[in-house]
Amino acid sequence: MASQIDFWFSIGSTYSYLSVMRVEDVARKHSVPVRWRPFDVVAIMTEMENFPFHTKPIKLRYMWRDVERRAASYGLPWSAIPPYPIRHMSLVNRIALLGAKEGWCARYTRAAYRRWFNNGQDPTVDPSLSEVLREIGQNPEVIVPRAASAEIKAELASETNAARALGIFGSPTFTVGSEIFWGDDRFEDAIQWYRQSDQKSAV
Amino acid sequence: MASQIDFWFSIGSTYSYLSVMRVEDVARKHSVPVRWRPFDVVAIMTEMENFPFHTKPIKLRYMWRDVERRAASYGLPWSAIPPYPIRHMSLVNRIALLGAKEGWCARYTRAAYRRWFNNGQDPTVDPSLSEVLREIGQNPEVIVPRAASAEIKAELASETNAARALGIFGSPTFTVGSEIFWGDDRFEDAIQWYRQSDQKSAV
Repeated sequence: MASQIDFWFSIGSTYSYLSVMRVEDVARKHSVPVRWRPFDVVAIMTEMENFPFHTKPIKLRYMWRDVERRAASYGLPWSAIPPYPIRHMSLVNRIALLGAKEGWCARYTRAAYRRWFNNGQDPTVDPSLSEVLREIGQNPEVIVPRAASAEIKAELASETNAARALGIFGSPTFTVGSEIFWGDDRFEDAIQWYRQSDQKSAV
Repeated sequence: MASQIDFWFSIGSTYSYLSVMRVEDVARKHSVPVRWRPFDVVAIMTEMENFPFHTKPIKLRYMWRDVERRAASYGLPWSAIPPYPIRHMSLVNRIALLGAKEGWCARYTRAAYRRWFNNGQDPTVDPSLSEVLREIGQNPEVIVPRAASAEIKAELASETNAARALGIFGSPTFTVGSEIFWGDDRFEDAIQWYRQSDQKSAV
């Protein structure tokens, strides 16, 4: 059986706002362990030539309306369409990866999304970039250079390879072993899958 | 208030299998009227250059797995990945439109999807094309020429214009007035939206 649900995401993905803000509460309610796994979804989408919104204003408009409605259904804050796209996705996802190694990934990612979606500020550029790190008790003068290191770049590429090998092509994606569930609206299906496989292995 | 939920679909859409087979049962359970509106989704997707699966084998493979899992969750039959794409989408959608004018659209569309998904046969080519019509008590020698008429072609184009004007870009889509819900997995959201707007107008 899978020992947890893996939550694959890239900061910069719009629908991931919904998951980032609710994953831990829902997982706790269902007593399901979730592992946060930042990766570089843009690399995979680019190589697949998968551009769902760029040059597609009608889909883009629908996407924001859908995110707004679903945020409301979860009781998540929504004020206005945030700046999009954000500028330095790779940098913040490397910071999130560093956080995953050190135990502050979820807190950082939620703070970055709150800044982006609730305050309407791009969390990948200063002063927001530094303020978000300070907000969670991290020192930007230490963290940003570390996130820019060759080691962390290689680790994000390695996680992106692992995502690609599973067949992941979008953010957010939930995986239970090799079973993949794409989209915030499939999180509950992933939970059900995890619990069923858990029961089977217990028999 | 909206007087019904409009169910926009094109036979040939894969996810629409799920909606075609369950829409009437779910709508009856919730006492919500649903109007079936066939349109030409390919025309809209082509003009938007929106090709989610063509040249994207990884997304295509995920899509089939997702449809299979969701079919199972609804208790719908699933045997194997059906032939894809089907050949003459325009023809069968014009037949469905004729059926919408005459009261047999839902029966025809379900029969076409059963033939396609459950028997693994393209319902747009003979003998399946004719057999599906006979199965629902229609004469293919009458219906097919009528569906090929300039009048029905113009009506399908007109319905497609109405879909485009609403901002529809995929099948299935549910609309409640001007509010649009894309995807089988948003049908329940559309029902909730309809019922809320119904309550508001009753106050």
